[in-house]
Amino acid sequence: MPLVVVGSVALDSIETPSAKRDNVLGGSAVHFSYAASFFTGVGLVGVVGEDWPEEHTSLLQSRQIDTAGLQVIPGGKTFAWRGKYQPNMNDRDTLEVHLNVFEDFDPVLPESFKQSEFVFLANGSPVVQMKVLEQVKRPKLVVADTMDLWINIQNDELRGLLKRVDGLLLNDSEAKLLADDENLVRAGHKVREMGPKFVILKKGEHGAMFFSEHETFVMPAFPTETVVDPTGAGDSFAGGMMGYLAEQTEFSAQTFKSAMAYGTVTASYNVEDFSLDRLKRLQRSDIDQRLNQYRRMLTF
Amino acid sequence: MPLVVVGSVALDSIETPSAKRDNVLGGSAVHFSYAASFFTGVGLVGVVGEDWPEEHTSLLQSRQIDTAGLQVIPGGKTFAWRGKYQPNMNDRDTLEVHLNVFEDFDPVLPESFKQSEFVFLANGSPVVQMKVLEQVKRPKLVVADTMDLWINIQNDELRGLLKRVDGLLLNDSEAKLLADDENLVRAGHKVREMGPKFVILKKGEHGAMFFSEHETFVMPAFPTETVVDPTGAGDSFAGGMMGYLAEQTEFSAQTFKSAMAYGTVTASYNVEDFSLDRLKRLQRSDIDQRLNQYRRMLTF
Repeated sequence: MPLVVVGSVALDSIETPSAKRDNVLGGSAVHFSYAASFFTGVGLVGVVGEDWPEEHTSLLQSRQIDTAGLQVIPGGKTFAWRGKYQPNMNDRDTLEVHLNVFEDFDPVLPESFKQSEFVFLANGSPVVQMKVLEQVKRPKLVVADTMDLWINIQNDELRGLLKRVDGLLLNDSEAKLLADDENLVRAGHKVREMGPKFVILKKGEHGAMFFSEHETFVMPAFPTETVVDPTGAGDSFAGGMMGYLAEQTEFSAQTFKSAMAYGTVTASYNVEDFSLDRLKRLQRSDIDQRLNQYRRMLTF
Repeated sequence: MPLVVVGSVALDSIETPSAKRDNVLGGSAVHFSYAASFFTGVGLVGVVGEDWPEEHTSLLQSRQIDTAGLQVIPGGKTFAWRGKYQPNMNDRDTLEVHLNVFEDFDPVLPESFKQSEFVFLANGSPVVQMKVLEQVKRPKLVVADTMDLWINIQNDELRGLLKRVDGLLLNDSEAKLLADDENLVRAGHKVREMGPKFVILKKGEHGAMFFSEHETFVMPAFPTETVVDPTGAGDSFAGGMMGYLAEQTEFSAQTFKSAMAYGTVTASYNVEDFSLDRLKRLQRSDIDQRLNQYRRMLTF
């Protein structure tokens, strides 16, 4: 298994200015693994309850995603989230969060996952993320995601984790919070100095920035009129990026730039419909075609 | 005179979280013309009062900017603006505006300016912008800037102007207002359908987007840690862009992309110090050097 993701598996209820969906397939590990599956073999580690529709597992398996790490808790209920997007489709309000079985998530990597060289620790408690790290043998590249909640309530644990990962992915506002700096370029580098070799700031509709010791670059989002549901955009970005990286042999700045371009394009499809609905209709060739369009857009 | 700009000439008082300047040289026509002067010959049309320090005119002339169109109103006072930047350096509050002589600005183009092929109508009343258009003979490319004030109080006049210009430049929030659409890509194209052949949306620290009938593209801002004073960023972007265009013979999408790249890079220098202080220390070779860096950043 080249790539493993550990994160949430959820049933999402989503309201946008023009539509509404209840209990659709979601969660960071789901969006990540589905996006990554266009590039490489991927194993998913997560937890669900008895209410979990088996068809969701089948859908993941239809993309050759290894679900051996998906625990089903008897009598438990799956993590459920309800959110409402503002008219700008960039800001959202969380209306309900029921952590359910995710509250006591104790990730256990199947033996076959422990040799994975590429590991993505999707957004979650840094304590749980650390537990995963202790189970993988000799990872080549570990990237973690985090959020404001952990920066606020588990700052020490997060700082500890940052010394153990290769890369950190977080939103621009979270980077400002963690670095205590309003300038994104300075904030990115300050976070990098906390431990990771590279930091990627996600700016939603404005794209993403990359920071390593000798590199600072920014890539815009792929411009699209069709933004139906932004849920999972960040995780599908990460999935496309890590999926691409897992198939590479060297990790130069150019490699990361291509990886971010693939992540950008994959995420641009993800937002075009609810849940995985757009990605379900996607071919790898669609991704490559839009990547070429994106490259032409940035060439002058 | 290849390029003419008509706009404000001002004395700015600026507060940032770390510094403060009173009565420094500013205004849209000033930032625009200084930026454009690295690329082409430029004539400035504006108005000032008796309080205008002659050294400011000398500074503009030292860059071969033709100030024959700068009216000095006896007994009048120069347009004065005071603003304060938020810690994010992207949002600002206007503390004071004294239009003074700019309130009755009646632009008169010197004879030598009327043959100019490239015209930039910096932000101002669409009625005044139209008066300028009536004075130019056979312009090749006319680009206007506008703002929420005119969208709100002179909407009809603005709509009339849009049918007469080749390009419109405006902020993302203003495009959303004018198009009544929260999606930037749709908003950009809707504004374009109001008349101009192309529309450029300025997104501040997030870059700029371009819309023509067959093209939609986005270019990120040049990432910099050194944001001392963002005042004039949009106008120096426009100046670099129009200055470059004024030296071209054909106007393909590629030409506009290069022009926007030059605008982006010129603006990235403008924000590195107050007023024109950074541009005063700038050489054309600095711009080309950063342009190459910017191009490398976007190549994968």
